[in-house]
Amino acid sequence: MKHISSRDNPAYKRVLRLASGKRAETDDGGPPGHHVVLEGIHLCQSWLQHAGSPQLALFDSDRLQDSDEVAKLALAVDTRLSLSCEPRLMKSLSQVEHGQGVCFVVTVPAQSLPPRIDHNCIWLDRIQDPGNVGTLLRTAAAAGIPNAYLSQGCASAWSPKVLRSGQGAHFVMSIYEHVDLQQAHERLAIPLIATALENATSLYKTPLPPAAAWLLGNEGQGIDPALLALADKRIFIPQAENVESLNVAVAAGICLFEHRRQHTL
Amino acid sequence: MKHISSRDNPAYKRVLRLASGKRAETDDGGPPGHHVVLEGIHLCQSWLQHAGSPQLALFDSDRLQDSDEVAKLALAVDTRLSLSCEPRLMKSLSQVEHGQGVCFVVTVPAQSLPPRIDHNCIWLDRIQDPGNVGTLLRTAAAAGIPNAYLSQGCASAWSPKVLRSGQGAHFVMSIYEHVDLQQAHERLAIPLIATALENATSLYKTPLPPAAAWLLGNEGQGIDPALLALADKRIFIPQAENVESLNVAVAAGICLFEHRRQHTL
Repeated sequence: MKHISSRDNPAYKRVLRLASGKRAETDDGGPPGHHVVLEGIHLCQSWLQHAGSPQLALFDSDRLQDSDEVAKLALAVDTRLSLSCEPRLMKSLSQVEHGQGVCFVVTVPAQSLPPRIDHNCIWLDRIQDPGNVGTLLRTAAAAGIPNAYLSQGCASAWSPKVLRSGQGAHFVMSIYEHVDLQQAHERLAIPLIATALENATSLYKTPLPPAAAWLLGNEGQGIDPALLALADKRIFIPQAENVESLNVAVAAGICLFEHRRQHTL
Repeated sequence: MKHISSRDNPAYKRVLRLASGKRAETDDGGPPGHHVVLEGIHLCQSWLQHAGSPQLALFDSDRLQDSDEVAKLALAVDTRLSLSCEPRLMKSLSQVEHGQGVCFVVTVPAQSLPPRIDHNCIWLDRIQDPGNVGTLLRTAAAAGIPNAYLSQGCASAWSPKVLRSGQGAHFVMSIYEHVDLQQAHERLAIPLIATALENATSLYKTPLPPAAAWLLGNEGQGIDPALLALADKRIFIPQAENVESLNVAVAAGICLFEHRRQHTL
């Protein structure tokens, strides 16, 4: 495994640029997509499990010695794709206070909208908080939902914070970003169900269709009225009186698992 | 309303100290408890709605002019308890990037453990992330759960981040902190239900008792084995295979609302 000790190493500089959140389109003649930096043991393990080899793997040279988990990850990657880095260089790459000493650079395929949308999915309308977007993806993956459609104005799905709270959901789902949900609705072959407070029926008194698109809206403003008007059903979660509504990811969890309870359990 | 333009004002200095997370025990001969700073329009509105007057209210002098919501809050508080502050002073108090120009100082009553625990409640075992603790409280409040028992090692319930993600849940629940949950178990008169992966039955195939204590564990390590051994039931949420488990607040939402579905709807 090659060792890097200079900030001027071209490969390192490229990863540093990517890790700071700048996207680089693939320029190597490979399939269209973009490069993303995955940080931390769990995300890298999850990538190996679900997607295969990274393009490039960077390891903290100290952690290769003193962390069994980091050493094990290094064994799982082709040494020609691996770099051992000085701890101070890894520290500069890290987005968190206590990095775990491992980063993968991976290529994420560009997703183009399918002509017909007929599988369970979540539709996210301007969900701004990266933690919420990540937790929504993690929740949908746990509920067995294969697809997510994110409108313009959602936190970027492949940003470090969303990846971190997604906990690997990204690698088992198809994620479509910058989707015009009104246009996508023309391709929708299953009912669109929205969570709403008005003109809505209780989640627990609504027979849910076997497959559905679940529409979830912005943390403060809720779902765009023009989108809400397209919904086939509006449901609410019956909660205690005089308290704040639920966090959007918790609300999604309750809906998606009630859906799962009605149809797959 | 008195106006403050100096950092050396004693009242301002005291609030600044509190806002930085330092607790001050009440020293004014009032009931035992501690002072807490609430920041932002929503939390302050929520305090007025559920708890009444603050001890002290600080308003950004510019926002009193240009924000209807801040001006409305100011009208709801006795002017003798209110201070108008220079914007730069309010900025120093704020824990967020774009503060809303209002802080309340309030007194939170100290809670001593009831002799008998017989109401629906959540038991949090070392939940470390402040966002998770806050979202758990918000979720419990929405599910109509009146009490929360937090072990040593949980994020401090009255810290700014927990308050922010709690969205006012703090003011409708009784929150017990630094609880020895094993000792508390001796006072428990209702079943203790734990979420667990092993030796557990499906949430949806388990008749849930009318009242229960829901035990939720640390994000990484789960529930302490000694506590888990005390559980009357162990349940799991049946999720898709080969994906990461759910976020603890989402898992709680699914359990608490299934409980609510079985008994109150």
